[in-house]
Amino acid sequence: MSRPHPFDPLTPAEISRASAIVKPHFPGLSPNFRVITLQEPRKNEMIRFLKNENDRSAKRPARCAMVQVAIVARTGPDQLFELIVDLDAGVVTSKKLLEGVHSHIDSAYMRLVENACLADPRVQVEIKTLNLPESATVVVEPWAYATDGRNDMSERTTMCWFYLRLVDNPDANYYAYPLDLCAEVSEKLKVTRVYRLPTSAGEKIHNKPLQFDRKRIHSADASEYHPDLRSAPRTTTKPYQIVQPEGQSFQTKGNFVTWEKWSMRVGFNYREGLTLHDVRYDGRSLFYRIALAEMFVPYGDPRCPYPRKAAFDLGNDGAGINANNLRLGCDCLGYIKYFDGWHNAPDGEPLRMPNVICCHEQDDGILWKHTNFRTGNAVVARSRILVLQTVITVSNYEYIFAFQFGQDASIHYEVRASGILSTAPAKLDESAPSFGTIVAPGVLAPYHQHLFSLRMDPAIDGHKNSLVIEESHPMPAGDPAVDNQFGVGYEARNSFVEQEGGFDLDHTKGRVFKIVNESIVNPITGTPVGFKILPCYSQMLLSHPGSYHARRSEFAKHAVWVTRYQDDELFPAGRYTMQSAGGSGIASAIERRRTENIGQSNVRNEDIVIWHTFGSTHNPRIEDWPVMPSEKMVVGLKPANFFTQNPGIDVAPSTQEQNRSVLVESETSCCSKL
Amino acid sequence: MSRPHPFDPLTPAEISRASAIVKPHFPGLSPNFRVITLQEPRKNEMIRFLKNENDRSAKRPARCAMVQVAIVARTGPDQLFELIVDLDAGVVTSKKLLEGVHSHIDSAYMRLVENACLADPRVQVEIKTLNLPESATVVVEPWAYATDGRNDMSERTTMCWFYLRLVDNPDANYYAYPLDLCAEVSEKLKVTRVYRLPTSAGEKIHNKPLQFDRKRIHSADASEYHPDLRSAPRTTTKPYQIVQPEGQSFQTKGNFVTWEKWSMRVGFNYREGLTLHDVRYDGRSLFYRIALAEMFVPYGDPRCPYPRKAAFDLGNDGAGINANNLRLGCDCLGYIKYFDGWHNAPDGEPLRMPNVICCHEQDDGILWKHTNFRTGNAVVARSRILVLQTVITVSNYEYIFAFQFGQDASIHYEVRASGILSTAPAKLDESAPSFGTIVAPGVLAPYHQHLFSLRMDPAIDGHKNSLVIEESHPMPAGDPAVDNQFGVGYEARNSFVEQEGGFDLDHTKGRVFKIVNESIVNPITGTPVGFKILPCYSQMLLSHPGSYHARRSEFAKHAVWVTRYQDDELFPAGRYTMQSAGGSGIASAIERRRTENIGQSNVRNEDIVIWHTFGSTHNPRIEDWPVMPSEKMVVGLKPANFFTQNPGIDVAPSTQEQNRSVLVESETSCCSKL
Repeated sequence: MSRPHPFDPLTPAEISRASAIVKPHFPGLSPNFRVITLQEPRKNEMIRFLKNENDRSAKRPARCAMVQVAIVARTGPDQLFELIVDLDAGVVTSKKLLEGVHSHIDSAYMRLVENACLADPRVQVEIKTLNLPESATVVVEPWAYATDGRNDMSERTTMCWFYLRLVDNPDANYYAYPLDLCAEVSEKLKVTRVYRLPTSAGEKIHNKPLQFDRKRIHSADASEYHPDLRSAPRTTTKPYQIVQPEGQSFQTKGNFVTWEKWSMRVGFNYREGLTLHDVRYDGRSLFYRIALAEMFVPYGDPRCPYPRKAAFDLGNDGAGINANNLRLGCDCLGYIKYFDGWHNAPDGEPLRMPNVICCHEQDDGILWKHTNFRTGNAVVARSRILVLQTVITVSNYEYIFAFQFGQDASIHYEVRASGILSTAPAKLDESAPSFGTIVAPGVLAPYHQHLFSLRMDPAIDGHKNSLVIEESHPMPAGDPAVDNQFGVGYEARNSFVEQEGGFDLDHTKGRVFKIVNESIVNPITGTPVGFKILPCYSQMLLSHPGSYHARRSEFAKHAVWVTRYQDDELFPAGRYTMQSAGGSGIASAIERRRTENIGQSNVRNEDIVIWHTFGSTHNPRIEDWPVMPSEKMVVGLKPANFFTQNPGIDVAPSTQEQNRSVLVESETSCCSKL
Repeated sequence: MSRPHPFDPLTPAEISRASAIVKPHFPGLSPNFRVITLQEPRKNEMIRFLKNENDRSAKRPARCAMVQVAIVARTGPDQLFELIVDLDAGVVTSKKLLEGVHSHIDSAYMRLVENACLADPRVQVEIKTLNLPESATVVVEPWAYATDGRNDMSERTTMCWFYLRLVDNPDANYYAYPLDLCAEVSEKLKVTRVYRLPTSAGEKIHNKPLQFDRKRIHSADASEYHPDLRSAPRTTTKPYQIVQPEGQSFQTKGNFVTWEKWSMRVGFNYREGLTLHDVRYDGRSLFYRIALAEMFVPYGDPRCPYPRKAAFDLGNDGAGINANNLRLGCDCLGYIKYFDGWHNAPDGEPLRMPNVICCHEQDDGILWKHTNFRTGNAVVARSRILVLQTVITVSNYEYIFAFQFGQDASIHYEVRASGILSTAPAKLDESAPSFGTIVAPGVLAPYHQHLFSLRMDPAIDGHKNSLVIEESHPMPAGDPAVDNQFGVGYEARNSFVEQEGGFDLDHTKGRVFKIVNESIVNPITGTPVGFKILPCYSQMLLSHPGSYHARRSEFAKHAVWVTRYQDDELFPAGRYTMQSAGGSGIASAIERRRTENIGQSNVRNEDIVIWHTFGSTHNPRIEDWPVMPSEKMVVGLKPANFFTQNPGIDVAPSTQEQNRSVLVESETSCCSKL
């Protein structure tokens, strides 16, 4: 087996080795290994390495692991340590106790919380007073606690929301029966509070015992998604299959993927999930790294305790550890290559996560076409894309993340939101409040936002890049200098961003953000080579600037951020988001550098990072119930005067010989087969 | 053969019959039949008919044709008549002489103009002075004349732009060699002016004879798109085929298409091309009619005569008569049903336009998914869409228009722009002006906009609908009335549009436009049933409000317009756009009704029409050359509390048994076949 590439995730052997190196640093204790993941090499080392990558004698950056260890304390909060391990040298190079921060939440801990909550006598009493139907099972959904300033944040707290499985089937959709019960559980798994939730707009939490209203019970077809619990599905959709008679067009060697003129390295870690490294087209460098960096899902329901529903799905939960095991013929069609991921068990041993990333090709319609109207000759090329996809489940919701590479040298990042709405109990026969939608009897789907941050570390023909804002403006009318006497002239105005900061979209000005390399001039256009961002127009965070939500999710304030590259600056809401108090995100980092270290704030012709905030203000429709049809959001990256022509112009024109379509001859009925 | 449905386009027999009825109205003359098309029935008649459609004895609206006839006058401008023919009664019911307007341009006329232009002695002298290479052929590209206020508009004028085919092949890309020559040709095919074009930013038109600079000659691979003229294409893209072992899932009967729970009628006419009528889901009415209504492509180059480049690609050219003959295995994959269109020859006889619309299915990734994290059980349904696609060529450009119907009751309208940039000559060794990109030596691709208008005539559970603007706003912080003490609450505010008008997008407020039926309340949500528009965020027209461009393209000022339904009000830049002077578009119609006829301006709970303006400010990249990779623009329509749950929840979960994907086992190289 060849040595791992410096960008490769840790191998199982490296995970074991890392924990073995760490264990002696906690003598007499049982360290709970929360994370053992690749500590990516410093960029300056990597740049040197990548230059001579094919020279086997080239100096490789040391393989290092970042390890988080929790030590359960008998009294007081658990201690969380972060260590850097040099795997080549076999030593811990850094060990620090993290003060005032908490480790991410995971399903093992959630199960402990659920069990502890249900075992609590007060909870049991409350459940009894509900007078539930016999077939019903109470389900507790633990949620990471979103800081609201009310609790001491020194201990980890988990919110427990209560639901009901009305039918005796573990796949029943319990979100259809939210209960008005709520509990809070401490880090030590003690139930600290039990109370009843508000169920109408003006109400507050209370302790009045209320029974489960049987009028809420409705048909399975109205709320179940699992086929075992529903009527038979429609049968009108006939099979549709992809055939690739000569196999796939992509090649993989370990985590190195090549396809058409693209090459890249696929990474994966517990937090970001899928990451891409050293993305090139036709050998030319485009991006050093691209990955989803954070995601914030704050709920707009103002009633206490609902402001505690505000999830950092990467920082708190982890897109990696919540990645689905993708299945052949379900999550993609055609020729599929799967990549496994590796995480670690609490004892420090490697844990295989099978099929967390799939790689396959898709047809994407017409890439380009022209018909010469004089000759009637048409030339049409079809677009093939390479898709790298991962799907995550964060409790109720699903996110489908896909990078799509085009033959025209475009990259599209597509996010689909699916899954089940997080619901809250509502009084029957009351109309919906202004912050939610009634999706079933007594079921409120509160409004919320999904705000993603896509981190793009560009290397457009090199590492010194600049961010340009291009706007299209009318020329002054009648200006003799421009001869705009007809008032129809318009021009592009480019301005270079000089300092780190956050910027907004403005479609009214045709605002376009371009990443350029000022030192490489396109030989034909005479302008710097670049890539442009096709943003996803989205509303930014609706919470008040002074709220904990706003202070904790600084990236959610602007659509496009540019920062100077810093090793380890990967997370725009801060490195430790669990019950964070704010002030550790991208805006604070920029402000700190601006006031303390002027030189580091320059972003013109420097190694820069671009962060795009996008998402949706999701005011649920009932059509999102019981499982949401995918809501698509797309961000694009396209060459802008980077090449000297259409990079897909050499794609072979389409022919029926290759594509073998079938003509549907004439009138057909649903019974006739061709 | 059964009688045509009232929404069906005219049959060939009806076209012949219409011209036969019309001819006696022009005794002794040779009428040039410009258009013979369906005159769609009045809506009130159609509504009555649709209610009893399956009752064969129901009264059908009369089949009527709209006919335009040009009569060439020996002196003075040609006369253009518009007639309505009742085909059932065999009579002309209306005949009017259209004053001050011109008929659309077509390829036959363009050929006449080109020939006349090249035959002109002054043009010949100019061409000689150019001293062109021997192999070269001069090509004249005639363009409809965009009004700039300089010429009398009583006669039709055509602009002639000159290009060169450098190699002796009719499919050579002559846009790579724009010449600095320009001519204007009158309706009577006389060359009225010949002059030289400006070739640098501040220059004006002139008459200095200049030679063709041989330094402009460049390699075929830099500018040709036709495979016969290029190096061999890449061979790395392996075949990818769609197999539908049980055939397609859609059914067609004439122009009536059903698929999954959708039904609709497909229409086609010379101007709009593909139209959709009586679109229903599960039998419930959604849209009476949807079609692209207009498209404006103004160029931003301010120098005379370039402001005359501003095409109404529907009103001047026609999306129907420029529709491509789609070919199996090229324009779509899988099981394809084609629809022919029918136009007419100048003598009034029917002209078949084969395969102008294709209908097929596509896989569209994951429709919905949920994994129960407790059981690990995943249920995933794939999304199948039905696509109705048409491709048009308007001289240099291609547009690919596709309606996509989803199993979740969504409709997406996708526009792809492709084809070749319209180019202008530029001086060598000068940098590009602020309004264009240099794409090849001496070749300027001027900036321009593509502004589309999608006309949506809703019938959401009936014909009385309202337009609602929903915005998401933070609740006042600390307001005791809403208990927003944590500052995170937000709410949706809905306002009903009461009067006709134009509105803009605002992603900063999460502005959503919804079409609702106030008299039908969703039984679960308690809110009116509706559909929401997912707009395409676009910059509106950049020309000055006083310019002819702005006055002629009124729809290009706002993103969303709502009007009260009027029979025959189909075109938001006016019915006659050729050399129009402005004031006949949607804003003028609204203003007229507002001032003259107050009652007709109400749009609340009325029969309304929604028009969405979208498109792109297209500042070309060199990557758009020599043929543009498709630039996608998408508009969506989604149910918003129209159903009582996800309409795609009954789609059968995906299985490998049905989908037959293939596992790519492990390391593969480009040489290994599976």
